[in-house]
Amino acid sequence: MTRIGVADTTFSRVDMGRFVLQEIRDSGYPIEITRYTVPGIKDLPAAARRLIDQGCELVIALGMPGSAEIDKQCANQASLGIILVQALTGRHVIEVFVHEDEADRDRELYDIAEDRARKHARNALKLIYDPDYLTRNAGRGLRQGGPDAGPIRP
Amino acid sequence: MTRIGVADTTFSRVDMGRFVLQEIRDSGYPIEITRYTVPGIKDLPAAARRLIDQGCELVIALGMPGSAEIDKQCANQASLGIILVQALTGRHVIEVFVHEDEADRDRELYDIAEDRARKHARNALKLIYDPDYLTRNAGRGLRQGGPDAGPIRP
Amino acid sequence: MTRIGVADTTFSRVDMGRFVLQEIRDSGYPIEITRYTVPGIKDLPAAARRLIDQGCELVIALGMPGSAEIDKQCANQASLGIILVQALTGRHVIEVFVHEDEADRDRELYDIAEDRARKHARNALKLIYDPDYLTRNAGRGLRQGGPDAGPIRP
Amino acid sequence: MTRIGVADTTFSRVDMGRFVLQEIRDSGYPIEITRYTVPGIKDLPAAARRLIDQGCELVIALGMPGSAEIDKQCANQASLGIILVQALTGRHVIEVFVHEDEADRDRELYDIAEDRARKHARNALKLIYDPDYLTRNAGRGLRQGGPDAGPIRP
Amino acid sequence: MTRIGVADTTFSRVDMGRFVLQEIRDSGYPIEITRYTVPGIKDLPAAARRLIDQGCELVIALGMPGSAEIDKQCANQASLGIILVQALTGRHVIEVFVHEDEADRDRELYDIAEDRARKHARNALKLIYDPDYLTRNAGRGLRQGGPDAGPIRP
Repeated sequence: MTRIGVADTTFSRVDMGRFVLQEIRDSGYPIEITRYTVPGIKDLPAAARRLIDQGCELVIALGMPGSAEIDKQCANQASLGIILVQALTGRHVIEVFVHEDEADRDRELYDIAEDRARKHARNALKLIYDPDYLTRNAGRGLRQGGPDAGPIRP
Repeated sequence: MTRIGVADTTFSRVDMGRFVLQEIRDSGYPIEITRYTVPGIKDLPAAARRLIDQGCELVIALGMPGSAEIDKQCANQASLGIILVQALTGRHVIEVFVHEDEADRDRELYDIAEDRARKHARNALKLIYDPDYLTRNAGRGLRQGGPDAGPIRP
Repeated sequence: MTRIGVADTTFSRVDMGRFVLQEIRDSGYPIEITRYTVPGIKDLPAAARRLIDQGCELVIALGMPGSAEIDKQCANQASLGIILVQALTGRHVIEVFVHEDEADRDRELYDIAEDRARKHARNALKLIYDPDYLTRNAGRGLRQGGPDAGPIRP
Repeated sequence: MTRIGVADTTFSRVDMGRFVLQEIRDSGYPIEITRYTVPGIKDLPAAARRLIDQGCELVIALGMPGSAEIDKQCANQASLGIILVQALTGRHVIEVFVHEDEADRDRELYDIAEDRARKHARNALKLIYDPDYLTRNAGRGLRQGGPDAGPIRP
Repeated sequence: MTRIGVADTTFSRVDMGRFVLQEIRDSGYPIEITRYTVPGIKDLPAAARRLIDQGCELVIALGMPGSAEIDKQCANQASLGIILVQALTGRHVIEVFVHEDEADRDRELYDIAEDRARKHARNALKLIYDPDYLTRNAGRGLRQGGPDAGPIRP
């Protein structure tokens, strides 16, 4: 039984954790999920560290940074913290951030969030159960949150 | 008896620690509070680390960065340090920063500081005593320092 | 038998790992390659750390950051993470990033990616098998991804 | 006997270490001072780390960043390093930086440097010998290098 | 016999390592030098860490960042990595960076590089063999790469 951590926030305006849980459960892999909800994205590095210390093989960290300048700085700090946790522990913490200013309308933002959360959840499963799939797609210009860019042909 | 650390500064123009102490005491939880006041926000990472080393389960770090460009840079450094302490120790250090330029008038700044400090104190308690509350509110667009943004409906 | 790690991404639009593998195999050195493909550049620090923990003497980390402002910030975070892994482990993680806005046309971008990946692969081999070559070329203005700048004569 | 480290630079145009030494000696506390002068501010994190490893309870790090863009970046790196040392060791490293562009005239810069160095030295002593003083002044808007801003009354 | 590491790059357009080696040899101190040349400045943190792990008391890290925006970001990452290595190990890594846009003409750039490399090499020796010299010059406005700024008189 592999344990995967799902860390998310009450600040986010979309419940991306729900999509991730659905994807993991639908995958059929024998996974135990530990969900850990924190107030904001700056609390995610500690949550990820705690989930890893509790035995999670991999953590998916979900957040929705606001659009003000200070929010962007907070997102940068949170991302650096998430990368720091990975460098210290050698465990993947898949960051799924959707920035409030990525779309003009709420509905569009919701769709980006759902698409990105689902695709990153599937990526996380591939990292654990099907790494060859990722290698077969190296350099193919895959995207999360929108259509793939595709490879550049020589 | 859980020990919680409250780190704050003499630089801040609002005594946010007072609100946090009140919230924790009013909560009725069996908590021992260790308060640690430092000169400025850049001293908060060391204070947080020391409080954790002294046995605090969680630290609330309060500060009020100034509005000059250099102050913003200091705030960024302090925030990165606070995140670093969390990544190293696996303990939450809830950062409560109120930026002097968030409001034009003193009274408004005071109200933001009080609202944010109180709400973050309650969040800290939820992280320890009622994590399910946070998970039930994942993706609900909760805010500290102002009204909630609310969730985006699909 | 020396083990070298090659970490790359499915986000990249050029399969730079292929060039690196070719260079390493053509070198004739007794090297075992471990390839590790992750979704995006922000997953590279964890991949590098894992490859080092699995016994890799050196890692080559390949990525192609996008051209939007947020992509540049992600690239900065990934680079800092890669440097952090090196500072913690004392192993080289040779970063080979090609930025989507380095060229106007796809073909040109492809050529830069191939040139840079091949030259960095050769550099990596020199670090392990022929460090004197590098010292003989210290201060010579060598470049990867374009023509050499050459030394400044006194 | 408490040991305090004083780290300063030959780059600085004001000998701030002198003020700090004077304040510490005038305080009457049983303190052994170890002074460590390095070329520039980017050498301060290593100096602080070494002073702590040599048994200093606390370090005061003094520097005067230049006014060019690159100097500001160096100051940011130095500050991050100083915060990193604190996060790793749990010891305070009180940063006293005076930026060359804080004043138009040399005399004014000198006065800021003296005021800030003296006040931070006194703060450092309070952190060790009189933490209650700091807590009594939490949220009072104290400043170093100029007049206090004062608290915001509700 | 003290061991000093000299890390430099093939990217640099001036062979600054040569000046450093000359200064160290001319000093007459019983020093064993280990030279380590890497491709670019972002490889310097790993080189410094490796040199320290091999027993170097101090490392001098030489590099010449390019003038494009991305080069400046790389220089910042390299500097942060160099500071990180120092914070982790407590050893000095004297960074000697000459930025390609510090001068308009090659000859001038060469002179800055030589002056800065030589002066930093002498500083490194002072840190090890004559720390009192540095303390006697604290706050004197010494510079590397150009004339001294001098102290501000009260």
